[in-house]
Formats: sequence, structure tokens, C-alpha cells
Amino acid sequence: MYGRYTQDLGTFAKDEAARLRLQEGDTPRPRRPSELLEYTQGRCAPCRVCALQCQRFLISKVGEDWVFLILLGLVMALVSWAMDFAIATCLQAQKWMYGGLDTNVLLQYMAWVTYPTVLITFSAGFTQILAPQAVGSGIPEMKTILRGVVLKEYLTLKTFVAKVIGLTCALGSGMPLGKEGPFVHIASMCAALLSRFLSLFGGFYENEARNIEMLAAACAVGVGCCFAAPIGGVLFSIEVTSTFFAVRNYWRGFLAATFSAFIFRVLAVWNKDEETITALFKTRFRLDFPFDLQELPAFAVIGIASGFGGALFVYLNRKIVQFMRRQKTINRFLMKKRLLFPALVTLIISTLTFPPGFGQFMAGQLTQKDTLVTLFDNQTWAKQGLSDEFEYLGILEAWRHPRSNVFVTLVVFILMKFWMSALATTIPVPCGAFMPVFVIGAAFGRLVGESMAAWFPDGIHTESNTYRIVPGGYAVVGAAALSGAVTHTVSTAVIVFELTGQISHILPVMIAVILANAVAQSLQPSLYDSIIRIKKLPYLPELGWGHHEKYNVRVEDIMVRDIRYVTLNCRYRDLQQVLHSTKMKNLPLVESAESMILLGSIERAQVGALLSNQLSPQRRLLTLRQKVLSEDGHRLSDSSIRFQISTEASSGSPARPALRKPLKPALKRVPSSPADSPPAGAADHTGIALKSLFCANSTAEPTEAQGTAYHKAKRVRISIVEEMVLGDKMTPAEILEWEEQQLDQLVDFSSAKIDPAPFQLVEHTSLHKTHTIFSLLGLDHAFVTSIGRLVGMVSLKELRKAIEGSVTAKGVKVRPPLASFRDSTASTSDADTTALRQLWDRHQHHPMPREASPGGDDDDDTPKGQ
Amino acid sequence: MYGRYTQDLGTFAKDEAARLRLQEGDTPRPRRPSELLEYTQGRCAPCRVCALQCQRFLISKVGEDWVFLILLGLVMALVSWAMDFAIATCLQAQKWMYGGLDTNVLLQYMAWVTYPTVLITFSAGFTQILAPQAVGSGIPEMKTILRGVVLKEYLTLKTFVAKVIGLTCALGSGMPLGKEGPFVHIASMCAALLSRFLSLFGGFYENEARNIEMLAAACAVGVGCCFAAPIGGVLFSIEVTSTFFAVRNYWRGFLAATFSAFIFRVLAVWNKDEETITALFKTRFRLDFPFDLQELPAFAVIGIASGFGGALFVYLNRKIVQFMRRQKTINRFLMKKRLLFPALVTLIISTLTFPPGFGQFMAGQLTQKDTLVTLFDNQTWAKQGLSDEFEYLGILEAWRHPRSNVFVTLVVFILMKFWMSALATTIPVPCGAFMPVFVIGAAFGRLVGESMAAWFPDGIHTESNTYRIVPGGYAVVGAAALSGAVTHTVSTAVIVFELTGQISHILPVMIAVILANAVAQSLQPSLYDSIIRIKKLPYLPELGWGHHEKYNVRVEDIMVRDIRYVTLNCRYRDLQQVLHSTKMKNLPLVESAESMILLGSIERAQVGALLSNQLSPQRRLLTLRQKVLSEDGHRLSDSSIRFQISTEASSGSPARPALRKPLKPALKRVPSSPADSPPAGAADHTGIALKSLFCANSTAEPTEAQGTAYHKAKRVRISIVEEMVLGDKMTPAEILEWEEQQLDQLVDFSSAKIDPAPFQLVEHTSLHKTHTIFSLLGLDHAFVTSIGRLVGMVSLKELRKAIEGSVTAKGVKVRPPLASFRDSTASTSDADTTALRQLWDRHQHHPMPREASPGGDDDDDTPKGQ
Repeated sequence: MYGRYTQDLGTFAKDEAARLRLQEGDTPRPRRPSELLEYTQGRCAPCRVCALQCQRFLISKVGEDWVFLILLGLVMALVSWAMDFAIATCLQAQKWMYGGLDTNVLLQYMAWVTYPTVLITFSAGFTQILAPQAVGSGIPEMKTILRGVVLKEYLTLKTFVAKVIGLTCALGSGMPLGKEGPFVHIASMCAALLSRFLSLFGGFYENEARNIEMLAAACAVGVGCCFAAPIGGVLFSIEVTSTFFAVRNYWRGFLAATFSAFIFRVLAVWNKDEETITALFKTRFRLDFPFDLQELPAFAVIGIASGFGGALFVYLNRKIVQFMRRQKTINRFLMKKRLLFPALVTLIISTLTFPPGFGQFMAGQLTQKDTLVTLFDNQTWAKQGLSDEFEYLGILEAWRHPRSNVFVTLVVFILMKFWMSALATTIPVPCGAFMPVFVIGAAFGRLVGESMAAWFPDGIHTESNTYRIVPGGYAVVGAAALSGAVTHTVSTAVIVFELTGQISHILPVMIAVILANAVAQSLQPSLYDSIIRIKKLPYLPELGWGHHEKYNVRVEDIMVRDIRYVTLNCRYRDLQQVLHSTKMKNLPLVESAESMILLGSIERAQVGALLSNQLSPQRRLLTLRQKVLSEDGHRLSDSSIRFQISTEASSGSPARPALRKPLKPALKRVPSSPADSPPAGAADHTGIALKSLFCANSTAEPTEAQGTAYHKAKRVRISIVEEMVLGDKMTPAEILEWEEQQLDQLVDFSSAKIDPAPFQLVEHTSLHKTHTIFSLLGLDHAFVTSIGRLVGMVSLKELRKAIEGSVTAKGVKVRPPLASFRDSTASTSDADTTALRQLWDRHQHHPMPREASPGGDDDDDTPKGQ
Repeated sequence: MYGRYTQDLGTFAKDEAARLRLQEGDTPRPRRPSELLEYTQGRCAPCRVCALQCQRFLISKVGEDWVFLILLGLVMALVSWAMDFAIATCLQAQKWMYGGLDTNVLLQYMAWVTYPTVLITFSAGFTQILAPQAVGSGIPEMKTILRGVVLKEYLTLKTFVAKVIGLTCALGSGMPLGKEGPFVHIASMCAALLSRFLSLFGGFYENEARNIEMLAAACAVGVGCCFAAPIGGVLFSIEVTSTFFAVRNYWRGFLAATFSAFIFRVLAVWNKDEETITALFKTRFRLDFPFDLQELPAFAVIGIASGFGGALFVYLNRKIVQFMRRQKTINRFLMKKRLLFPALVTLIISTLTFPPGFGQFMAGQLTQKDTLVTLFDNQTWAKQGLSDEFEYLGILEAWRHPRSNVFVTLVVFILMKFWMSALATTIPVPCGAFMPVFVIGAAFGRLVGESMAAWFPDGIHTESNTYRIVPGGYAVVGAAALSGAVTHTVSTAVIVFELTGQISHILPVMIAVILANAVAQSLQPSLYDSIIRIKKLPYLPELGWGHHEKYNVRVEDIMVRDIRYVTLNCRYRDLQQVLHSTKMKNLPLVESAESMILLGSIERAQVGALLSNQLSPQRRLLTLRQKVLSEDGHRLSDSSIRFQISTEASSGSPARPALRKPLKPALKRVPSSPADSPPAGAADHTGIALKSLFCANSTAEPTEAQGTAYHKAKRVRISIVEEMVLGDKMTPAEILEWEEQQLDQLVDFSSAKIDPAPFQLVEHTSLHKTHTIFSLLGLDHAFVTSIGRLVGMVSLKELRKAIEGSVTAKGVKVRPPLASFRDSTASTSDADTTALRQLWDRHQHHPMPREASPGGDDDDDTPKGQ
């Protein structure tokens, strides 16, 4: 994450999306299974026919969703298990090295520090070289992708390899990094690759909507097979990646995640790690009396404290990134030596955890997994009254320090791990923050639990029995609460139940998680939203809950009224003007400046293409050549036809079929000029001459004629063409004259791709509903119309402003508090009536003298009257 | 459910929705807290001011969501607990009666049978009289309501009382009925009432979008406090009631459901029923080795069998309802004596469960709760090898029969309870089917478990240890699988974890639930969808998964092309014609018949109102009186102004301000005629004379001028007016002539409510996307446009047809299989280009001779040319 993302990633993503969407039409389709029939000619035909039929049956089954989901689950389980195995081996190796060198503390220290530094540096370098997109968690990017934005290279094989290997090395180093976030990304990549692979067998996997659904299921698989928590995985992935969730995808997620978790745990059984399928971090708390009602305040305290802690973590994480970016000198130095920052951070962290050094006060020798196992332990660590005989057995030993007590160790652990985790997750390697936060939460819970146990050594007294306090239960609650606070999710509760295999603490966990969320959500965005903002990815903030004033703000309060538009009967000069005056990605197409009836929307790139096509050197050369030819007295008829076309096209003569015929000779001559072959192989075999004439250019153009860049490109091209000569005998002055002449022609929209039904809102739509619709449909802009008339536009930006409360910003008007009460009763407002009346009037009297346009105070520059 | 719902409930619901929406504008707003300031005048003013400020602070807090959710949770927990207490008392009473009369079997039988019969009959009668809407589960209705349909009387206090009392009696009878479904309904009613109550303190609770969100949270509370299962409750309610779910509501559901479940369980602790908060049906399976991998096939068998069983249950339930309805004679008899059917069913069921009779073979003396407790028991019931010493202790005794073994008892129990539950849930009392199905599933699981235990008496052998099989675990799996199959949900898995307090069987449960769902979903709709269809509520079927052909069907294949529309410059006669020729609820408003540019949509009721307003006797009388007055030579100028207005309004003279002045005297005279006062008190104080003149009628009219009824109403009114005389000296012939004259006038739409941005689709939108948008936005129709031109319409009906596969039906064209491959590459299709070109042409040459309209083959009756 560090240093990689600049201001324009969001813009870049959108441009890429537009580009990819344009390209989509060109990709060749895979061959259909029916082509296989050709092979049936030969000996042993019946046998082959039978085999073929079987094959075809299988192929038809491959198209089914469940096959895909099962395959995805299987692959991901294998990946997860293999990775866990590799990580465990790495950690084992470090432990072995450290243990083997116990004769010399310096050597021991060298081994302890060098090993993770090398691994992290390798991981950072490897991902940097192979696929920088693999850096970081991946959940923010998946959230963006599921919102419909296409992020380049985020779902490729290269990124997959980089992420898997990078993640294994990063986690193998023993740094406080997590596996969950990257696993969501890995599963998504796996789904994308699998669907591309399976599409070799048939065309089922080419639908975009379906691919999005599969990606949503893949996110669930990612979490599910990482923690062997199918239910929690599905819920967590929903909460983290979606705003609106289709219940039919739920099913897909459950199937894939369950299968994946099953295989993941079965692999452990087959590997003799486990006797049977059980939870990953199995706890053995007593069932009959899990907790006392009077302990609930302590759980609530954990929840509230975790809420503050979670917000602080997100804040700290963001501040570190921003600090690294802002400090120019540090930044320049680190950017030069890209691997220095990861190495430095690893060095500091591993030095501090060195067990014979400071690590002895914070159980530094334990791996993340061991730490969690010890924290969830059934026993009480604190000295309980008289009986001091409790033995720290096995790995529990790490928490004991001869010169201090367990409280000090826990506090040091929490404080140190807190900033270490926040720092470590900014390293540019594939890593998540869930697991480190989970461990810190567990430690905090344990601290509270141990304090409670020390306070009530004999348990809280009930009438019949006394039950001692179980600090392990507090650790579970703390883990769920802190991770819930950082990620702003409630499903961490379900994840802890599945991780520990016990659900007896359900109420404390739920209470703590909900309180933690309430606190954290009111203070900071979630960690993933924070990263989205840092990376400047396109996003839409959530509507906070309880802000009922959001229901009273309306579209008319936040919309941009002064928007540029393209009219149906405009000239190329107008297009040029519009392109210069606005930066909107989509321009509304209206019937005329007077009626303002919205007909559709046209992409900026398309407008640019139209313009550059009109002014293209090819067209100029063609004209020139024709002029020369006509001057020669030869081919006079053809030239006149060509000109007839251009005037016809702009003045709009009746029907196309009549138009198509005279155009053909003109088209056939076009490829003879070398500068004219379509660059991207975008040959259009539809057979319509007119279309191919215009389309070849319009599909190839957008990348070079992106919006404002168009004008510059035009100038450059003039000089290029001058160098090329190619029979171009026009002087620059002549060219300019020709261009001016061309700009005065009427625009022929027939070659442009127009979205015929852009999303429309009404002025009275509430902000709440607008937000809902934007997030439901993944829009990034919507036009505001009033009875067919375009009156404004709302884009993600305005919406974001309005939601984040900066409603006083430019172009945004604050609505008086009681405004909604005033006019919510009258659903036919004055504005509607006026607009309708105008429209209606216009139809009655076509040649009208003058009419007052109520919303038209901002388009005075457009000509009045037809 | 039985017999109550006729064909037209769906239609009725929609009409009601339209009516309520129209009425909404009229309801008086509650007084604002600012009015309270008046009371501060008096002695001890500062003290009062302080108190008032406190009060105002509290009132402002009342507007917060969390206050509402906490209150809702609290109330529902109290209701749930009180109801459980009452039910337990009822059941205790029956047991006591039955136990006390053990000297005489006949008396015992009488008591056993009469008690439930009386209770059920009372419940049926009570709900029938107080609120018939309280009958049945309520989940289907909630699903419909959350889709945006307004069902009358479904969320009122009367229904609430009827449902609570009816449900308590029904469950107290010991019939195999459930509490869950009705509880969803009760919680929703509670939320609606609470929000109405809290709105007395402020206007926060009046937003419709917010109310829908609160209802969604209430559904979660309903399930949550019924089972003390907050997570399962949220998930179950999402799966059962929503198609698309807003993740921000998730949070609300969790908060309310957790609080509710907490209070519900705390009440049990305070009542000394429990020592601390634990699960409702706590199990105590061993944790270290919950099940063996080799047992998984048995769990899968349970899942698959449950799938078939679930589908059979839904089928059986539907067939019973349909049979009762179809059998005219039975039906007529039962309808006459409405309470006979419930009494009869109760009699049969309670006779069969009579413990000394047939009940001894099916543990008839156990209540539903006891049955579940015994089925989840830790011990193995079947005789295990040599050791026959197992003692059936306490209530377990019921399962033992001296002359048969436990397998026979279980089989008989399953078979009898299966049809009993299917039959009992058709009784017209408030009742759900979840719990009975859950119990049957548990029994089936137990049966499989006991068989496994008998087959492997020493457990499945692993290398180190032998672990015996736990049949209770199988019961848990079976319960989740069967209830999941009947309701088509996966979250029953979560519910069983929360009910039993153990999550160790997570994988078997998940596998069984998923398999059961896969089987059941492919055979039958869910129980709730089945009831929705039986009750003919408006619904949209789910897109099956794996049907990838759905991605290839497009809107153009399913849309209705031949639709009626209203043009902006049409005459009243055209409106009349449109009303006669179509039954559409919403008519599209287009610019003109040639351009077909969609401007908005207008409700049928509004069109009717426009027409009847134009032909209203008041207007006629006014004209008449003015004529008379002008004949008197008096007030000549005023009359001419009046006429000038009507011509002005229709011919569209420049500006409104100029128009307002001459109208006022005409308006002021209007109330002087007695037939003229607006009937519903819909006085419009906006001050715009023109508007109030038209609006007063248009808001009052729709109820009587509903669509096709308008024409009849008109004729009736003529005769009424004739009787009223009131200076009406026109003969019927004159009236008709006058009306004909009126019909030839141009329509003035300024008084009609026009939806200025109806939802639009494009011809190329896929069926999949259309379904998504319809269910996301709760639409019931959408217009299909092509560059602003209206080309067709898709309504819920067409969509439903297309999804359910009857694509060969009338008006629906089957798309050739490869069609999508042909044209998915060309996003600028011919049709678009043609349409655009036409529009463009039209603008270039205003007086055009003739143009070929591609989609206009059905509007040849409309005049061509402007």
C-alpha cells in the first residue's frame, strides 16, 4: 500500500473500465462444442459418437454453477492447506534455528532477525516485480470490483502467483500479519481464472453479471477456507464487500465455503494432524454454566474499550501511511530503495520480539497461532488466593516471567503488538490485518478476564453453586469485539464460534461486538474503507444509521444544475465546446436546448471519437484526393456522391437503405491509403458499410482521444500528417480552414454508441433513496429529469459530499430543516406543473414567442427559440 | 389460510396500496414539540424551562434508531416470554387434567380431546371475528409487504391482539403448530405500532423507506426472540423475506435481535427457570470427538432424504388447501360453520395422540418442547449389544413401548406427525409450520442415528480410540435439514447451533442442510412461496440457479409491444379510448404518437379523475349557470373570462402568473354550488387557484373513479344529478351533446400527478438483470425505451411468465438459442441506429413527408404527422 497509490488511481480505474468495455466486443469467441462433431468421421465411429456424447454431457454439466463452486472450493482448500503447511514449515525452521544456536546470544539474535527480514524483503521484492497489485489486503479492491469498477490486472494469474508466494513468505516470517484479507483476493482470482479455464469448454462463463456473482461467492470461500468457518466466512464477506446483497448468492457462498472448509479440515485429518474434523482453535469451556449474568458488565466494558481500540488502530494505520507519504525526504529515500522500508520495519519488530531481549516481556517466542491457543486456554493464569501451585505447562511458559506477573506481560504484549501490527500492515507485501487484530483483542479480553478472576477468586457467588470465572471466555469475547470494531462487522462473532467450536458465550460475544461496532463506527471508517480512501478508489460512503436528517435531503438540494449537454441537432463545434468546458465522463444527449428532453447519454470518449473522426487526416486526404480527381475531370460523379453523403448525413434525408448504396465505392477506396487501416484489428463484419466506416475509428480512438487530450492530439496529428506528406498538399492554413468548415457541419450521431436509457432520478428523490439506488445498481452518475426534461445531474461526488456532511460546499445548498415537512404533502409540486405546462404549451403553439424557463437560469448561453 | 383467499386478493392489495398512497397526503401532521413552548408561561418558569429542555432532549433521542430497536427488542422479549409462560400453563393444565382422571379412560379421553378442541375453536373464532388477517404464518405476507405492497389491516393493533391471543390458545392446545412464523408477523406489527406511538413525539417515524427498514429489523427480532437465536434469527428473516438485502439493515437486525434474545433469556433466569443464560435446548455432546469422518455419508443421507421430505411436506400442505377449496360440498358446509373444520381436525389429531390409545406408539403424551428435549438427548436408546441395562428415565419413558422397540415408535411418530403437521397448519388459526417440521426432522435424524448406533454398537473404529455414535447429533442434523428444506433456507443451521448451544456438528449440519436445500429447491417452492401462490399475493419467482439460459433471454423477447399510451396533446376522447382498451395500472405519457418520446407515467386512477373531472356535473352546472347569467346580460365579462381560461389552458398561452388573476373570481364562486364542496376535506392551501380548482377533485376522485369503473360511475352520476335538479335544466340529450363537446377538448394534464421518471429498461437488458432490478427496487412494471422512445413495457406478469418457463405463451417470443452470441458484440445495434436516425431526421426536416417507424406497427390507429 505504501507509496504506490497516487491521486489518479480512481480515475485510472474508471478509464480502464471504459476501455475494457469497449474492447469486449472484439475478443474472439471460443469455439463451440458443436465443432467437435468434425472428429467423428473415422473408424470405430459408434464408439466415438458415444464417447463424444459423454463428453458433451460432461461439458454441459461444466456449465452448472455447482460444479464451478465445488471446484472453486476444492482448489481454494488445497491452496489454503498447502500455504498453511508452508508457513508452518517456515516458522518451524526459524524456531529450529533459534533453538540450535542457544549457545551464543548474538548468533541467536542474528538468526532471529535475519530470517524474517530476508523473507519479508523477498516477498516485497517478488510482488513488486511480478505484480504490484498483489500488495496489501485485497478486500478494499474486491469491494470496488464488486461495485462494478474494473481494476486492471487485479484478477490475473500473475497476481495470483505473486500473492500466493508473497503471502506465504510474509506469514512465514512470523510478523504480525494476517491471512484473511489476501485470501479473499486469492479466492477471487482463483474464481476468475477458473471461470476463464472452464469457458474453454463452453460459453457459459462469459456473462458479466454471472462473473460478479461468482466473485461474491469466491469472497466467501476465501474467508471460509482460511478459518474453516463457512457461515462466518459468508457473513463476513457480505458485510465487508457488499452494500446490497442478493439472497440468491448467499446460497452459492454457503455451498462453496462449506465444501472448502470441509476439504480444508479433511486434509488436516488425512495428514494426521487431527483425529477428526473439529474447530481450528478448539476451546473446552464448561457447558453447564458458561458465565454469570453479573459478568455481563465486564463483557460490555470489553466491547466499548475494543470499539475505541479499533478506531485507534484504523487511525494509526492511516496516519502511518500518510506520514510516510508526506515526509518527502524519507519518501524519496525509501522510494529509491523500495525494499528498504520493509526490511527496516521487520528489523525493528523482530528485534523487539527477540525472546531473550524485550521479547521475554511479551511472549515474543510464540507464533501467532500459539499465542491464540494459549490465550483461549481454559485455565486461569493469575495467582488465585492461597493456591499458587498453578503450573505453566508447555507453550504457556512463554507468558510467565520470573520478575513480573502475567498482567504486566499482557499489557506489554497488547501495547507493543498494537503499534507493531498497525505498522506491519503498511509494509508493501500481501498481508491482512484481521488476524493480528484478533490476537490483540484476545489478549485484551484475557487481561480483563484475568483481572476479573483476581478480583473474584472464587467466582461470583450464586445461590447454589460457585463457578469460577473463565478468563478464556473473555479472550474469545475480546477477539471478536476488537476484530469487529476494526472491520466494522458483526459476523466476527460467528467467526469466533466457528473458530473455537463453542457457542456458549453467544450473548457476551454479541453484546461486546455490537457495542464495539457502535463505538468504532461513530469514530472512524472501517479499516477497508480507510484503505479505499487512501488508495483513492471510487467509493460511496455508507449512510450512517440514526441520521434521520438524511431522509429530508433531496436530490434537488445536491444536484449539479449547470451541466453541459449535447443536443441532437448540434454542430461539431458545439461538441468541441462541450468537451472543453466540462470533464464529465458521460454527456447527456437532449432533443434540443429548448425542450431539454433527455434522450440518452453518450460517453465522453465517443464524443471525442466523433470529433476526431470528423477532423481526421484520412477524411481530409480523401476530400483532397477527390477534389484533385474532380479537378482532373475524372470520377466527377463519385466525388459528388461523396459530398452528397456528407450533406445528406448532416441534413438527415429519409432512409438509410437508400444511403447505403452510394457509400460503398467511397468505402472501398478507403483502405488504399496506408494511414487508414484500423489499428486494433477491429474489423466489423456486420456488412453495413456506413457503420464500419464510422465504427472502425470510433472503437480505436477512445484510448488516444480521451476527453481533454483530444485537442492536443489533433494538433500533433496535423504535424505528423504534414511529415507524412502522402499527397497532402494543403498548407496549415488550408487545413485550419478545412477544419473550421468541418466543425460547422451538423453532427451525425449514428456511429456513436449511445446509452439509450441512462438512469434517471426526480428532483424529489430523497438522499436516502438516491444512496440506495446508487449502491444497488453500482451507478456513478444519474441524470435528474422532470417529465422527460433534463434538469440536473448527480454523481458519486455530489452524493459523497452530501453524505459526509459537507453540504455547504460549492454547488450544494443546505435545505432548511423543516423543508421536508412543507412539501412532502404535495406530490405534484409547482416545478412539475410548470415544466409540464411548458412542454405542453410548446406542443400547442409551435412557433412561440418567448417562454420563461424556471430551471433554465443556468443555460442562458444556449440559443433560445427553435 | 383455508378458504379465505380468493383470486383477487393480489389485485385488491395493489388497489389498496394506491388508495393509501393517495390518502397519505391528507392525514394531519402530529403537533410539533415546538408547540409545547406555550406551556412555559406561568409560575416557576425556569424550572419548567429546564424540565422542558430535558423533555425535548429525550424526545430528540426518541428519534434515534437504536432507541426504537431497543424498545422493540424489549417489548418483543416480554411478549415472547409471557406467551411462552401462558402456553406452558395451558399445557400443564391439560397434563394435570389428564393425570387427575387416570381412573377412567373414557373421562381421560374426553378431557384429552375436549381441551385442545375448545382452545383451537376459540382461537379460530376469536381471530375470525377480531381480525381475519391474523390467520396463518404471516411470513408470506411480510415478504409481500417488504416488497413494497401495502396489505390492508396487516399491521394494526387489532391484528396484533388477535394474533397474540389466537397464537397462545393455538399453541396451548398442544397441536403440532409453531410459533416462529406468527412471531415474525407479531414483531412487525409491534414495530409498526411502536413507530406510530413514537411518532407522537416527533416526525421522525413518518418516512416510508425508514419504516420498511424497521420492518426488516422486526422480522429478525421475531425469529430471534422466539428461539433466543439472534444470529439465526437475522439470517433466517433475511432469507425468508428478502430478495436483496441492505447490509446496513443487518446491523439493525443484530442489535434488536440480540437485545431481544438477551431479555428473553434473562427473564427465564429471573423467573428461576434457569441458573444462567444458556441455550433453549441445551445439548451436552462430547466436544473432543463429535463425529467420525466415516459418519459423513449418513449425514448426507439425512440431508437428501430431508430434501425429499421437505418438498413432500410443502406439496401435501398445498394439496390439502386446494382439496378443501375445490370440494364444493365440503367447502360449502365448512364455510357455513366456519369453526367446524378446526374442531374436526383437532378432534382427529388429538384422538390419535391419546396416550393410552394409539398415542402410546408415538410418544403422544409429550409436548413439542419435551419431544425435542428427548430427541436431542445424549444417550443411545437402541439396545446396544449385550448391555440391555439402559434405563429410560423421566420423560424419556414416553418413547419406550413394552411390545415394540424404539425404531417402531420413531417411524410411527414421523409418519403420523408428518401428515398431522401438514393438516394442522391449514387450520385458520395463527400458526407456523417451522417448529413441527423441526421436530419431525429431529425424529428422523434420531431414527438414522439410532440405526447407525445399532449397526456400529461400539462406534466406528479409529486407530487409537473408539468413540460411540451419538444419535442426538443426528437428531440435530435432521432437524436443521428438514426445516431448511421446507423453508428453503440455510440459516436453520445457525438456528440449531444457537438452540442447542453447541456448534461442534457444524460440518454435518451444513452438508445436510445444503443437500436438503438442493433437493427441495429443485422439486417444490418453499412453504412460504407456496402460501404466497395459494393466497395469490403479488410475487416474483426467484431465478433458479444454474439456469444459465436466463442470461440469454432479453427484455425485447418478453416485453409487451402493443401498449396503449397517452400523448401530451391528446383529447379527452383519446383518454376515454385508452381507458377502455387497456387494464394497465400505469399509462405511459409520450410526447406525441410520432416521436414516442417517453415523458413520464400517469396512474390509471389519475386519468380516470381527469376524465370525470372534465365531465363532472359540477363543471356542467357551472357552464350552464354561466350561460344563464350571460343570457341575462349580467356578468358577461366574467363568463367570457372563464371560457377564455379553458381555451387558454388547452391552447397554452404564455405564462401562468398572467393566468392566475382572471381565474380567481371563477374559483370563488365555485363553493357556492352545494354539490361542489370537495368531499374528502382535501382543501389545498397552496394558493394557486388553478391548481386547487383541479386538484380538489383529482384527490377526491380516484376512489370512486377507479379505472374501468369510471364509465359506469359517469352514467350513474348523470341520473343522480338529474334527480338533484339543482337548477339543472339540461335534457339528457343536451348532456350527452355537452359531454361529446367536452371530450373533444385537449387534455390539460397540469392537475394530474405524473411520475416524471418511471423506470426504464433497454431492449437489450437481460432477463437476469431485469429480475435483479425488479426485485431490488420492488417494481411492478418498467417501460422499455430506445433513445427516449417508448417501445414496450415489461410488467411483473411477463417477467414471471418468462422465469417460470412459459415463454411460448401469448405475446412472448422464444429467442433462438444462439441469438445472444449473434448480437452481443454489437452494442450499437441496427434498431438503435435506426431509431436515432429517425429522431434526428425529424429534427432536421420538421415538415417530413412520411417515415417508416420500426416499432410502430401497432400504433397505426394514431394519426401520423404533427
